[in-house]
Amino acid sequence: MQQPDQRDHGGGVDAAAARFGGQRSEWIDLSTGINPAPYNVPALPAGAWTALPDAAAQTALLAAARAFWQVPEGAAILAVPGASSAIARIPALAPKGRVRIPSPTYNEHAASFAENGWQVVEAGETDAAVHVHPNNPDGRLWPATETTTPLSIIDESFCDITPSATLMAQATTPGTLILKSFGKFWGLAGLRLGFVIGDPALVARLGQMLGPWPVSGPALHIGAAALRDETWAEATRARLATDATRLDTMMTEAGAQTVGGTSLFRLYEVDDALAWQTRLAEHHIWTRIFPYNPRWLRLGLPAPDGWARLEQALA
Amino acid sequence: MQQPDQRDHGGGVDAAAARFGGQRSEWIDLSTGINPAPYNVPALPAGAWTALPDAAAQTALLAAARAFWQVPEGAAILAVPGASSAIARIPALAPKGRVRIPSPTYNEHAASFAENGWQVVEAGETDAAVHVHPNNPDGRLWPATETTTPLSIIDESFCDITPSATLMAQATTPGTLILKSFGKFWGLAGLRLGFVIGDPALVARLGQMLGPWPVSGPALHIGAAALRDETWAEATRARLATDATRLDTMMTEAGAQTVGGTSLFRLYEVDDALAWQTRLAEHHIWTRIFPYNPRWLRLGLPAPDGWARLEQALA
Repeated sequence: MQQPDQRDHGGGVDAAAARFGGQRSEWIDLSTGINPAPYNVPALPAGAWTALPDAAAQTALLAAARAFWQVPEGAAILAVPGASSAIARIPALAPKGRVRIPSPTYNEHAASFAENGWQVVEAGETDAAVHVHPNNPDGRLWPATETTTPLSIIDESFCDITPSATLMAQATTPGTLILKSFGKFWGLAGLRLGFVIGDPALVARLGQMLGPWPVSGPALHIGAAALRDETWAEATRARLATDATRLDTMMTEAGAQTVGGTSLFRLYEVDDALAWQTRLAEHHIWTRIFPYNPRWLRLGLPAPDGWARLEQALA
Repeated sequence: MQQPDQRDHGGGVDAAAARFGGQRSEWIDLSTGINPAPYNVPALPAGAWTALPDAAAQTALLAAARAFWQVPEGAAILAVPGASSAIARIPALAPKGRVRIPSPTYNEHAASFAENGWQVVEAGETDAAVHVHPNNPDGRLWPATETTTPLSIIDESFCDITPSATLMAQATTPGTLILKSFGKFWGLAGLRLGFVIGDPALVARLGQMLGPWPVSGPALHIGAAALRDETWAEATRARLATDATRLDTMMTEAGAQTVGGTSLFRLYEVDDALAWQTRLAEHHIWTRIFPYNPRWLRLGLPAPDGWARLEQALA
């Protein structure tokens, strides 16, 4: 199985604990952008574990997702086992060509296109484009007009914090696919649930690639319950915004400068990001640095019981 | 999302309940080959739901799987979100050509190869071959020598009932992939867990297609616990064998003839399979019939509380 830390997408706490010591369970993982106060897993019907996921549960999940994201009628929607499963297969949806992926951004898209024989470029006329919206790690939002290519991927994995910024209206533009992640905003990354929304022909082809039961029974049930819970979503947005401001204040007082981000992760400029990462790792707090910028440090939000330890580590 | 009942792979209880009445929860689904007395879902660490599946949990699952199936050292192993996710992608692992799939068998393989531009044939020299071992629905076992083609798929989804029949020794033959299903023998089909074992280059390519975290955190933990539990596996084999005999006796007394199968599903010959299916459906018991043979009826095993209702329905 591919090792999760071969590409710098976080989750490397196992390796950090091996290097800096401490039980893995003691570590605070701020290297991801996952909400640390997750949606409560509801009681599951026994059939969610034992039966093949049935059509009724799939239909209920997709109806909840359509309502939550206000998916336009002409757009198709597919539930997938994590947005990363779609990212891995999207380059196979069109003939190999040139894909524009403005950097810096989440590097899994470029890796997947390159692995499938595409040429990845920064700008110019291309056959495909990927926009992470808001962008990871800097939080940049893209205007709708920049995303028109024959194949256009809009990765809204972090857009549920700022739903008004969505480019969902473009889901009916031919060649467009919008990605949604369940794991990040709802804090249940282990569930493996995501959605692909857009061009019906492309969505159908992707569905064939993933097989008839791509999403687990627990994911169908938990996802449907969470997507119907607008109250939780609104309260969570407010809490995350407050926490992001709290983190910015703490980091600024410690000498970092805020670059941007979203309220699920914050990007800071420091003199020496590796030194900051090491210092925090000695307190068993894991953060994200970037091979392409030695001054950038990214932190996710601590869980409620993690703030005091972060403050001590920064002191 | 693809409807699960477009290809005759069971799970059509929703549709049956709509047609014959009754609450879905009242129905006894004997249309699949899923163990009706599943492995008990153990308590899960919170991180199984919330964190990205970590490398340690993945490593533990694969180690348990290697030990359980006695995977030869030179063979690679990959955990996938259900064997069907592998079946959907396997045809993309080699250039399109001719694939030999002796029928009758589980029709998802032929559908997937055809969808990917392969020519599906019954016999002769081919570029690939698929053997379901033991075969579904008739239980046939294939000799090892029949499975040598440049790409050779051995689907052992139902082989855990008869582990001595495994063709696992062939996993080191170049071009060979052996599929294992977790949902059927362990009765947790909703979990979406399966394994692909064999040629390291093919397994690596399949892993790339599925992305970095294909399997959920709950599946990693439950799968590892179950695969380490040899005692449960042995007791389950004995129970399933007893139950299969009990079902054969009941069906034979009702006028059916036993054709074969495995101890997770039994295949019977009757005068008019559709009439039998309809009669049982009127008692809210769903069974499997086959478009290619109007005299074949397949039944999975009832759960402990289902035998009396089946007996009444057959009377």
